[in-house]
Amino acid sequence: MSIHAYGAHAGDQPLEPMNITRRTPGAHDVQIDIAYCGVCHSDIHQVRAEWAGTLFPCVPGHEIVGRVAAVGAHVSDYQVGDLVGVGCIVDSCKHCADCAEGLENYCDEMIGTYNFPTPDAPGHTLGGYSEQIVVHERYVLRIRHPEAQLAAVAPLLCAGITTYSPLRHWQVGPGHKVGVVGIGGLGHMGIKLAHAMGAHVVAFTTSESKREAAKALGADEVVVSRNAEEMAAHANSFEFILNTVAAPHDLDAFLTLLKRDGNLTLVGAPSSPHPSPEVFNLIMKRRSLSGSMIGGIPETQEMLDFCAEHGIVADIEMIRADQVNDAYERMLKGDVKYRFVMDIATLAD
Amino acid sequence: MSIHAYGAHAGDQPLEPMNITRRTPGAHDVQIDIAYCGVCHSDIHQVRAEWAGTLFPCVPGHEIVGRVAAVGAHVSDYQVGDLVGVGCIVDSCKHCADCAEGLENYCDEMIGTYNFPTPDAPGHTLGGYSEQIVVHERYVLRIRHPEAQLAAVAPLLCAGITTYSPLRHWQVGPGHKVGVVGIGGLGHMGIKLAHAMGAHVVAFTTSESKREAAKALGADEVVVSRNAEEMAAHANSFEFILNTVAAPHDLDAFLTLLKRDGNLTLVGAPSSPHPSPEVFNLIMKRRSLSGSMIGGIPETQEMLDFCAEHGIVADIEMIRADQVNDAYERMLKGDVKYRFVMDIATLAD
Repeated sequence: MSIHAYGAHAGDQPLEPMNITRRTPGAHDVQIDIAYCGVCHSDIHQVRAEWAGTLFPCVPGHEIVGRVAAVGAHVSDYQVGDLVGVGCIVDSCKHCADCAEGLENYCDEMIGTYNFPTPDAPGHTLGGYSEQIVVHERYVLRIRHPEAQLAAVAPLLCAGITTYSPLRHWQVGPGHKVGVVGIGGLGHMGIKLAHAMGAHVVAFTTSESKREAAKALGADEVVVSRNAEEMAAHANSFEFILNTVAAPHDLDAFLTLLKRDGNLTLVGAPSSPHPSPEVFNLIMKRRSLSGSMIGGIPETQEMLDFCAEHGIVADIEMIRADQVNDAYERMLKGDVKYRFVMDIATLAD
Repeated sequence: MSIHAYGAHAGDQPLEPMNITRRTPGAHDVQIDIAYCGVCHSDIHQVRAEWAGTLFPCVPGHEIVGRVAAVGAHVSDYQVGDLVGVGCIVDSCKHCADCAEGLENYCDEMIGTYNFPTPDAPGHTLGGYSEQIVVHERYVLRIRHPEAQLAAVAPLLCAGITTYSPLRHWQVGPGHKVGVVGIGGLGHMGIKLAHAMGAHVVAFTTSESKREAAKALGADEVVVSRNAEEMAAHANSFEFILNTVAAPHDLDAFLTLLKRDGNLTLVGAPSSPHPSPEVFNLIMKRRSLSGSMIGGIPETQEMLDFCAEHGIVADIEMIRADQVNDAYERMLKGDVKYRFVMDIATLAD
């Protein structure tokens, strides 16, 4: 079937309407009518070919929510009409140690929702800026939020799980002092999630103007990271800091805020390296610097259920499909609170 | 009492004989006749004022072994004649969370064995290149090795615990593939200890000539890190890598060898930074980069007992006190297998 989508034909061209096809659902497939798709910063990097290996035409989008339109013969967990989501992953090897542990995100053969090889036309996966998607049932998530919140659930599929997974991995909870660096698409979710997990949350921003907004999101304290005195007052005091900022910056400023055995986890990858962190800051208090990438499928379901239970969604601005190029420009200026979500119904206009 | 020692009066002067004094033992003090003192690379950095803050006269040495000469009235665990050791730490606050957990090495008020403030003359601590030392009983370690091994036990007090502590912290044991980078004073201990803990040990060296020596130390495999093919064969396969190399080098070469959730721990601090590690290498497999500094007093005792039980000592070259300046030059060329130990009896010559 041919459906409407929005994508680019080359890295130096704007996104525009296009028609794409989806495979006929197989026995284990779920066909989904997409209602909304979140707009992630990595969509910009990939559709503009800023990272190596973008395949064109490129249809971005991996924060997908909608309703089941059809299911394959062997699908038992989902029925037509169910509210479901698809995140960054649409396939993996299903038998390696990572897949066996439900950490498909670390599988060497993980297939991303767009820009990864597939037998389907045109030979690479096409993402959620489109009317439908067909996905193996293993990679489909159930949404238990009220339908009225559906659009605001979309960003949970990437921004939500990318922040939830490291917070859980490092066992954030009551009694912990947890930092969240950057108050954007990822950071605003990190603040909400860490707060709901019971931690004392300190938000770090370079912008004095975000102070009140961060508190409204659930931060117990807000530190303007350009203020050396404010930073110094928090030295050696954090169990965990989640750093969502991809732009190159001084990691030592945050490493030195960690207690003994504290961890700084990076979820954003800069296009040019951060200044090299000072090894003494790691040695002196046995601190660690880590990375984390999205999360596995079972943990994504756990995160969605946690958010439904705690009434957590993303703060979004809805856009029409034909506004996506302008939305990208605004995102590059940090001018969005805090995630754009595309109304997929506008693709047919 | 005035005793013989060997130290420097300024950073640009060689070490030479000098006389120093030690305090009269207090109620909780142990007075030790030093038999041997290991020569650590950090001795060179500090006595040459290559790190900030060296206090002169500087008497280095924190790998101290000898016999108890006298004990204070309240000392019950040690008796005159006992074989004992003193490592890098001679005091700490004794009441903070770190001290309470026996991690005196991370106490903010830790007093190092030399070059730290003390009420004793001359106002800063003086190390083990000297005939005697007086230390609070809490920081004295019991040596259960045969006396004939005493000189070769000395390097365990720094090189041994510095490698043992991270191996234990990261729970190295049977079934683990563990790397040790650098085959020097620290690295040769790391190989012996990881082997004794039951891990599959891979030694990394830049020098083809160290291949057989590393196997003799207990390495199951040896990789010449300049050989890209050899390195690539070990990609994504290590639970843990202990990096003992302080010279600036490419950390990504080792980060990419870690499995998912693997850890690279640095125990050497370079005087200029390592090239900045690639964040993608941390994110892609949730890897972490850490530091570790020496170890606490209870863990140092545990390490000494573990080594006594497994027959582990350092490989040493004995030197006279008046050879220490030459020994430093040889260490800077990597020309020692694998630790110099000073025969303290030669101080009186």
